Amino acid sequence: MAVDINCDMGESFGLWKMGDDEGIMPFITVANVACGFHASDPVHMRKTVALAKKHGVKVGAHPSLPDLQGFGRREMKMERGELAAILIYQVGALSGFLREAEMPLNHIKPHGVLYGMAARDEEIANAICDAAEVFQVPLFGMINTVQEKVYKARGIPFVAEFYVDLDYAGDGRLIITREHEAKDPATAAKRTLRAIEEGKVTTVDGNDVPVGSESVCVHSDTPGAVDVARAVFETIQPHLNRKAA
Amino acid sequence: MAVDINCDMGESFGLWKMGDDEGIMPFITVANVACGFHASDPVHMRKTVALAKKHGVKVGAHPSLPDLQGFGRREMKMERGELAAILIYQVGALSGFLREAEMPLNHIKPHGVLYGMAARDEEIANAICDAAEVFQVPLFGMINTVQEKVYKARGIPFVAEFYVDLDYAGDGRLIITREHEAKDPATAAKRTLRAIEEGKVTTVDGNDVPVGSESVCVHSDTPGAVDVARAVFETIQPHLNRKAA
Amino acid sequence: MAVDINCDMGESFGLWKMGDDEGIMPFITVANVACGFHASDPVHMRKTVALAKKHGVKVGAHPSLPDLQGFGRREMKMERGELAAILIYQVGALSGFLREAEMPLNHIKPHGVLYGMAARDEEIANAICDAAEVFQVPLFGMINTVQEKVYKARGIPFVAEFYVDLDYAGDGRLIITREHEAKDPATAAKRTLRAIEEGKVTTVDGNDVPVGSESVCVHSDTPGAVDVARAVFETIQPHLNRKAA
Amino acid sequence: MAVDINCDMGESFGLWKMGDDEGIMPFITVANVACGFHASDPVHMRKTVALAKKHGVKVGAHPSLPDLQGFGRREMKMERGELAAILIYQVGALSGFLREAEMPLNHIKPHGVLYGMAARDEEIANAICDAAEVFQVPLFGMINTVQEKVYKARGIPFVAEFYVDLDYAGDGRLIITREHEAKDPATAAKRTLRAIEEGKVTTVDGNDVPVGSESVCVHSDTPGAVDVARAVFETIQPHLNRKAA
Repeated sequence: MAVDINCDMGESFGLWKMGDDEGIMPFITVANVACGFHASDPVHMRKTVALAKKHGVKVGAHPSLPDLQGFGRREMKMERGELAAILIYQVGALSGFLREAEMPLNHIKPHGVLYGMAARDEEIANAICDAAEVFQVPLFGMINTVQEKVYKARGIPFVAEFYVDLDYAGDGRLIITREHEAKDPATAAKRTLRAIEEGKVTTVDGNDVPVGSESVCVHSDTPGAVDVARAVFETIQPHLNRKAA
Repeated sequence: MAVDINCDMGESFGLWKMGDDEGIMPFITVANVACGFHASDPVHMRKTVALAKKHGVKVGAHPSLPDLQGFGRREMKMERGELAAILIYQVGALSGFLREAEMPLNHIKPHGVLYGMAARDEEIANAICDAAEVFQVPLFGMINTVQEKVYKARGIPFVAEFYVDLDYAGDGRLIITREHEAKDPATAAKRTLRAIEEGKVTTVDGNDVPVGSESVCVHSDTPGAVDVARAVFETIQPHLNRKAA
Repeated sequence: MAVDINCDMGESFGLWKMGDDEGIMPFITVANVACGFHASDPVHMRKTVALAKKHGVKVGAHPSLPDLQGFGRREMKMERGELAAILIYQVGALSGFLREAEMPLNHIKPHGVLYGMAARDEEIANAICDAAEVFQVPLFGMINTVQEKVYKARGIPFVAEFYVDLDYAGDGRLIITREHEAKDPATAAKRTLRAIEEGKVTTVDGNDVPVGSESVCVHSDTPGAVDVARAVFETIQPHLNRKAA
Repeated sequence: MAVDINCDMGESFGLWKMGDDEGIMPFITVANVACGFHASDPVHMRKTVALAKKHGVKVGAHPSLPDLQGFGRREMKMERGELAAILIYQVGALSGFLREAEMPLNHIKPHGVLYGMAARDEEIANAICDAAEVFQVPLFGMINTVQEKVYKARGIPFVAEFYVDLDYAGDGRLIITREHEAKDPATAAKRTLRAIEEGKVTTVDGNDVPVGSESVCVHSDTPGAVDVARAVFETIQPHLNRKAA
């Protein structure tokens, strides 16, 4: 089965820049576009959708808890209905720009700490499904988590992700940090190829754990992100989904 | 031609209430729902769309300049591209809730000071058209203004509004205040009927000016708003558009 | 020892009103003024400080987690340094208006869920002390909690509060709700007098628990709040701290 | 008379970086610290105050219109009382961090478009004076403008600024852009020395206009800002105010 390379895009805000979207776009097939609650703003969302279109990159929504200052990386207690509404709002907002660009919405991928919360908490995972049902798109997530269980039980297509530039704990959990560390491109690419071909990754404790890899994720705010993306893009070519025309 | 009664709805925010949406919904045929930039939030937008559906009321977007604290009633200098993006974002967000409720988007009506800016400034009026083109819906506005001229030149369907509870200046301009004053329901209703049947209103200077009246607008934050809405609703019955089933 | 009646004040935001500050101010001796992060804005803060001064009411800061939409009632994970900075910012902002009014800062009382978090979590309680040390003022809080322990260990003067209009759980914990229920004024006043004279309150389970009562708190967003405040004010007169001249 | 070099500092926000504060701090004597309305947040404000203290740099407040997304560079219509309240709030917030660092507030310098508005509009200039009176500090500004006239009429000490890295129009007005262009360090330094010694600068039209230069301003978000700051710092040494011990 063909694999996608996805990356969080459009994370600049106002005059503040983040990530080299122009540099990375050639090496990915799917963009997760921020929706204004942890990053981005209407101007950057519109520009990012246009950039993705130019590079034949599919666009999904990357909605978040409402926390610009904390970049969506601070946990907030939120009820299911409240969270679902917040997600529908953000995905709807992005859909406006996709409608302008005549592009379909490809998927939803919860951002930051919300991604981790959905991996542990059924209410959160259900709120995310509530939003996905409205837009009828797949959800990106981690295997062997509450999110995988809930998304599948709800009948939402589930796309299993592998993280190129984040470490995995000994028990298979993803280690999400507020700022990301630089990674060696060749090592990251080799690790990704193994994840795709063998379905395994070596954790920080030295053991192997099973990982999904229908879509592999690179982060644009990791130092050296373009080099990492290029290395992965080149190394996994035989498995890679084609770009749009 | 049948006339609509429209009203700005969903203007509560978080724990703060504004307007008696439940009280007014029975007496209107079209709701302009706030999109979170001057009022409302995802939870209130979702709830307002559901309430409108229950009452057979059509829903349009009521987007604004980004100014919660000033309720979108403080002028901001904004470039066309920036403003268009802000509007597409808000209308898209509302469309998410409409999609969930299986309702079409009925129209766009710019909120507050933006409405007035579009009546004077071509760039602003064009930015609003840019958003309306994306969603392919009519724009609400005032006759004999820059907005009417620009909207029609751009080929966007234009719905001429009459304001039940705002005063008109001697030159025909609408007098927009930050807080609205109470109006006598019977007088307001009679004035509205005359606007519909004769296309005229008496200004604060005592002269008559021509007004449009394809849709008549009542404000939910005017004191006694429900009584005004009911009086208008009953008085203009012969001209009124039917509610949805 | 003389007792104060404190009340959260200045909780309107922009055009949205909350609480009858003018109605309640005559019946309290201390105002906890919102600082813009869960409620209020610069215009309302300035106005509230002036109103308090007119009524001889002392003013303290009522800072919050950064969450206008959730009214500071949704838990957020926050590191000590980050939280301390957020609190210093808010208390400093209020101090600007006190400086203009030539009034001293009386105390700090954390708002909403932050109050409850400080009752359970040492890091949170310490962050609040970090802010209190900067401004050299007492902290309001609940006895028999982590906050009492930490505040006292840090040498910050601690003012024990009794809640007139909130229920206590069987184990003595305060039951904090997102919206407050109406209370019978006479019953609330009698309960408060007993708390002051006997140091006890009856919980929802029917048992008595010890409570502090150096300052008794009424809420302005409880329905019928003015009547409750008046009844308490009149009933506890013999124990009450005098107002400023 | 000794001259200061001032620079806007603390303009990062959340995870977004702006300006090389650590690089520039050695070459300035006064920092204008953002107060959270156009840039910065409590964590960055606290850190910036500490950094300034370490370098013997005095700290003033750099308050703005409330517009993070537009970086305080979009004009907003604001009444005098509303604007004064917004400024007192921001300056008060910064004062909290200065109190913690045991540093005095040095001055107030309005940020971005507000600076330009105060140069043209008496109401705006008066609102700024209202805030300066509360904190009893000087205001930074441009000579031959409404702001100079109003500040002096109100008896607020006025510090005349020269802009190292912005162009002047033929009529002496400063040309404020949303993003700043790179400048040659040696040319900028020579131009600054001439402003100090002769009180003149050459405009974009080629004519000379008089300029004040009690404090010279470098921008940290201009490309190559550290080199410009160092060149100015070295070139104007004989005229420069000493740093704090």
